[in-house]
Amino acid sequence: MIIVMKPNAKQSSIDAVLNIIHSSGLDSHISTGKEITIIGVIGDKAKLKDANLEIADDVEKIVTVTESYKLSNRKFRPDNSVIKVGNTMIGGKELIIMSGPCAVEDENQVMETALAIKKAGAQILRGGAYKPRTSPYSFQGLEEDGLKLMKAAGDATGLATVCEVTSLSAIENAVKYVDMLQIGARNMQNFYLLKEAGKSGLPILLKRGLSATIDEWLNAAEYIMAEGNPNVVLCERGIRTFETATRNTLDLSAVPVIKEKSHLPIIVDPSHATGVRSYVKPLTKAAIAAGADGLMIETHPNPARALSDGPQSLTFPEFEQLCEEIRPLVQVMNKTF
Amino acid sequence: MIIVMKPNAKQSSIDAVLNIIHSSGLDSHISTGKEITIIGVIGDKAKLKDANLEIADDVEKIVTVTESYKLSNRKFRPDNSVIKVGNTMIGGKELIIMSGPCAVEDENQVMETALAIKKAGAQILRGGAYKPRTSPYSFQGLEEDGLKLMKAAGDATGLATVCEVTSLSAIENAVKYVDMLQIGARNMQNFYLLKEAGKSGLPILLKRGLSATIDEWLNAAEYIMAEGNPNVVLCERGIRTFETATRNTLDLSAVPVIKEKSHLPIIVDPSHATGVRSYVKPLTKAAIAAGADGLMIETHPNPARALSDGPQSLTFPEFEQLCEEIRPLVQVMNKTF
Amino acid sequence: MIIVMKPNAKQSSIDAVLNIIHSSGLDSHISTGKEITIIGVIGDKAKLKDANLEIADDVEKIVTVTESYKLSNRKFRPDNSVIKVGNTMIGGKELIIMSGPCAVEDENQVMETALAIKKAGAQILRGGAYKPRTSPYSFQGLEEDGLKLMKAAGDATGLATVCEVTSLSAIENAVKYVDMLQIGARNMQNFYLLKEAGKSGLPILLKRGLSATIDEWLNAAEYIMAEGNPNVVLCERGIRTFETATRNTLDLSAVPVIKEKSHLPIIVDPSHATGVRSYVKPLTKAAIAAGADGLMIETHPNPARALSDGPQSLTFPEFEQLCEEIRPLVQVMNKTF
Amino acid sequence: MIIVMKPNAKQSSIDAVLNIIHSSGLDSHISTGKEITIIGVIGDKAKLKDANLEIADDVEKIVTVTESYKLSNRKFRPDNSVIKVGNTMIGGKELIIMSGPCAVEDENQVMETALAIKKAGAQILRGGAYKPRTSPYSFQGLEEDGLKLMKAAGDATGLATVCEVTSLSAIENAVKYVDMLQIGARNMQNFYLLKEAGKSGLPILLKRGLSATIDEWLNAAEYIMAEGNPNVVLCERGIRTFETATRNTLDLSAVPVIKEKSHLPIIVDPSHATGVRSYVKPLTKAAIAAGADGLMIETHPNPARALSDGPQSLTFPEFEQLCEEIRPLVQVMNKTF
Repeated sequence: MIIVMKPNAKQSSIDAVLNIIHSSGLDSHISTGKEITIIGVIGDKAKLKDANLEIADDVEKIVTVTESYKLSNRKFRPDNSVIKVGNTMIGGKELIIMSGPCAVEDENQVMETALAIKKAGAQILRGGAYKPRTSPYSFQGLEEDGLKLMKAAGDATGLATVCEVTSLSAIENAVKYVDMLQIGARNMQNFYLLKEAGKSGLPILLKRGLSATIDEWLNAAEYIMAEGNPNVVLCERGIRTFETATRNTLDLSAVPVIKEKSHLPIIVDPSHATGVRSYVKPLTKAAIAAGADGLMIETHPNPARALSDGPQSLTFPEFEQLCEEIRPLVQVMNKTF
Repeated sequence: MIIVMKPNAKQSSIDAVLNIIHSSGLDSHISTGKEITIIGVIGDKAKLKDANLEIADDVEKIVTVTESYKLSNRKFRPDNSVIKVGNTMIGGKELIIMSGPCAVEDENQVMETALAIKKAGAQILRGGAYKPRTSPYSFQGLEEDGLKLMKAAGDATGLATVCEVTSLSAIENAVKYVDMLQIGARNMQNFYLLKEAGKSGLPILLKRGLSATIDEWLNAAEYIMAEGNPNVVLCERGIRTFETATRNTLDLSAVPVIKEKSHLPIIVDPSHATGVRSYVKPLTKAAIAAGADGLMIETHPNPARALSDGPQSLTFPEFEQLCEEIRPLVQVMNKTF
Repeated sequence: MIIVMKPNAKQSSIDAVLNIIHSSGLDSHISTGKEITIIGVIGDKAKLKDANLEIADDVEKIVTVTESYKLSNRKFRPDNSVIKVGNTMIGGKELIIMSGPCAVEDENQVMETALAIKKAGAQILRGGAYKPRTSPYSFQGLEEDGLKLMKAAGDATGLATVCEVTSLSAIENAVKYVDMLQIGARNMQNFYLLKEAGKSGLPILLKRGLSATIDEWLNAAEYIMAEGNPNVVLCERGIRTFETATRNTLDLSAVPVIKEKSHLPIIVDPSHATGVRSYVKPLTKAAIAAGADGLMIETHPNPARALSDGPQSLTFPEFEQLCEEIRPLVQVMNKTF
Repeated sequence: MIIVMKPNAKQSSIDAVLNIIHSSGLDSHISTGKEITIIGVIGDKAKLKDANLEIADDVEKIVTVTESYKLSNRKFRPDNSVIKVGNTMIGGKELIIMSGPCAVEDENQVMETALAIKKAGAQILRGGAYKPRTSPYSFQGLEEDGLKLMKAAGDATGLATVCEVTSLSAIENAVKYVDMLQIGARNMQNFYLLKEAGKSGLPILLKRGLSATIDEWLNAAEYIMAEGNPNVVLCERGIRTFETATRNTLDLSAVPVIKEKSHLPIIVDPSHATGVRSYVKPLTKAAIAAGADGLMIETHPNPARALSDGPQSLTFPEFEQLCEEIRPLVQVMNKTF
């Protein structure tokens, strides 16, 4: 931590800051410039976190030097994490594709989808049983019945399964049926839910919040990991910007940034990011080329009749074709699929 | 709902859309332009919500005409709502000031604060017992013990009290001690929590999400109101933008926009919006002049030692002075304080 | 300038950075923490601006401590600037209102408007003769003929005049007719135009860019001032965000931020910020209460027939009423109007 | 164009709107719903552009149906444009790489760079002679001397050349020396400059503005094309968002969106988008996989001593390696390089 004093700060103000630092059991280094004095703090800055040095007299600003996330930080764990979900490993050499409907609607829909995506090569079945919808009057999900349908489809096909959870009771249900829990974008800073997900023991798919910085995202992962659960997979799904041609703006820079800052795997969801079916294919390829560990792609037997997010869902033939088209690209990227 | 067809759409595509509309029991009007055909849907568009007309052949775009929120919509309730919190009314002629520390820390802090803000003229005591913090290693709040301190301070001073809730169990605790529940910005689209808050029976202070549109905000209010709880007060607290001079960008336009679109009261929180003590006073005045029904302003006996958000908290003398300074302004705005 | 080294940086990397600093004729202070070494640079950091220390080995990040703008910086000129435009002073005790049509259309329109706003109390006539329009097929302005109409209206009423300029030739024309040049939001980082405006000798109204930070805005002012022209007035007119209920998001926090960082006057344009007539009045009041030195408000004899931005223009009776309504507020703020 | 009336609009208001439409020589279709009346306008909506129907009585909103850009619109020209720059074609089967320094500094730097990028496979040399810099105290470019160095390097290597222009005089100089003019992000809505660039006769590289929507970007292209110059290449270079891990947020969705809406070629600049050297490689690959027609990548003989944007520049060996690595990817995408 560095404390930058205002130009021509009074000596008494500088002494006051030093006093706070030293009385917290920390050391300091002073750098006196022509106009500005800078104070470096040596030691565990956590001891100063409630000192509010920003508002001490003549303090211009505080610069933090170390990240607040530790468990998710590559600095403290240089090797890539590889996370086991069912019999599938995320973060290794294999490109992972999670696919399925936005919302679980009925048995046929889920089973048909599971069979179709399995055939195309996907490894994980996704499907929402608890749906966070902007309006209370939109379809809210089948809840536990939906989870059961997911389990049945997973059992029948050997696919691992992932479902979003939106409350403690949803977690308590989901752990009985699925292989991975998803924390959605709107709940990325629902810290209560993150802690409960951490305690669940299951691997967690953590979607980036609509306006979350990468730093906040890794801090959200830290909430889960601090509960003793190291199995977190990050999912970039678009951030909110002024552009309206796509539902959100897919931030593919997040892939190399996360790879640099963290050891956790990262996958990309072009379906929710764009909201437009025809953009899913080029952005799937872009995500693979950027180095993503996997993808989440929405599919539906009949998108025109989907109860949620139909316009962005691929049909089975479209999905199958996409999976075929990416194979040579995956190979070029030195991965398998 | 209006369906805009692509230029030179095939007649068969137009017929297909009409067929979907009519088979849903709705009527249509066709407007055939030189290049473009437009189809208006007449009747309850909710019947079409799962039809995904966006992806029917030759459809260019769907334009929705009516808002999805009803209970919070001024179109359906032209008169201002006035919400009772303790013995205070929000949304009427009196300007309401909620004040107190970001986080409840101990009995002295809360009681001192309650006495100081009461003396200055504030009507409602705020204080966080459940704190959503970016990092899991920051202070997370006193939880039920904090709620008890709030109740004691409210009882001693006659101030109404408001506390943020972050989970069902927090709600279950809070209803025993406080007069109003706050849903924080990070939980504005935690729909599970909104529903539970709606069932609590207490009035709800609903903060705007960091990247929530006004439309989404009113839909969030709708979640609470759809549970039979009409007592929602909105709170603008800054949105996330590219600007870094302030922590968030206070969107004061939201005040007249909400007044036009909704009958619910709206208050403004300049402390969280800016994160900087010296900007609180001018923006408090601006909020009053914009027509806000009240303010939420952080105060602390000793901001330099606050466990949360000290840099934006006012001291008691600063708060008292602010309350004095706004009195002539409140009068000019035809309100009382 | 502070250089933060990576954890466990090699001594040779630290020495390399020191070598660059010292060979540029500057001094350094080293602060060696448990994990991290920090190097403070003492002296004129401009000497290092092309050293690209960011990419020296083992450098984590560079923290700049001093602002790059000097002439517009309050640190180097503590007293408020008061700028003379015609016979009007901006930045002093008097609240200044600039008003008029978005685009100059014809003689009657300009003259009628000048008389109406003069009567209501405005001091400066605005009107666009060179219009930056999103589409090339929209009305582009009357150019020099428009400037002449502005001059005639200014002469007839004694109002000072301000017109936007969009090119060197526009500046060359405008200096012959008007009292103040406006640099529009889209040209805020047209550095060539800023320099030419600086050389013009006239006071400059510098609108904030749609996505300009306050720091960039003050650097744009610096371009003008570095040409020997200290007469710059800033104008907040809304920034681009995700919100669509208003055309832009008016950032009223910019008023106290600018007042703290700079000595230049700042006015607010609620018409362009919101794009909606009914929001102009509450935000005008809010701007005054936030401490703005003035306002820019669009008026038109017949908004329904305005060639540009009609929906946000006030009629004359609306403008007159607004000017009446703000008088007690101006008084409360210790200003005159 | 569709006019949506307010719920329960008065018949007189509806008649007034119809009257405006009909008196402009246009036809209308009325669609009367249970609560809302919708009026479709049939004919050339340009006739109504100054009618400001938004503010007619009882009008809720206006929905525009057709884009305002025509020449750049794929609807009116379904086939891809292929643009000739020197002897290179952009928009065809060959992937085009533009490379070179951010700023032209001296003869050696430019010549060395031209030889190195030519050897690696790049087809176009870029280099800034007129530099738009945030601060007036940063290096502003060699101007005409820089253009001469670019021409010499182009002549010596056979590479085509592209330089940014920032004023009419810069255009007048540049046409004498280079093969393509670049309009930079900060000037994307400098409509005066766009028109002059259109008149220059040279192909134009049009960078997306920092906060420009895709719609505004295509309208900016329209300004150039409306001057009779169809040779516009678009360049996505990152948009401004709240994220600070990268300098801007590269919007790769823009590639498929532009491909859908326009026939113009689009290239991607990962160097300016991220500002970080290590992110350039993964995002270059992602851009190719997304379907971009080319790339703009900064290189410098000695990034640590570059006068502008050193931290994002690749060294020659890094660039050469990148060009090698992308070859199999280009092949998979059915392109050549």
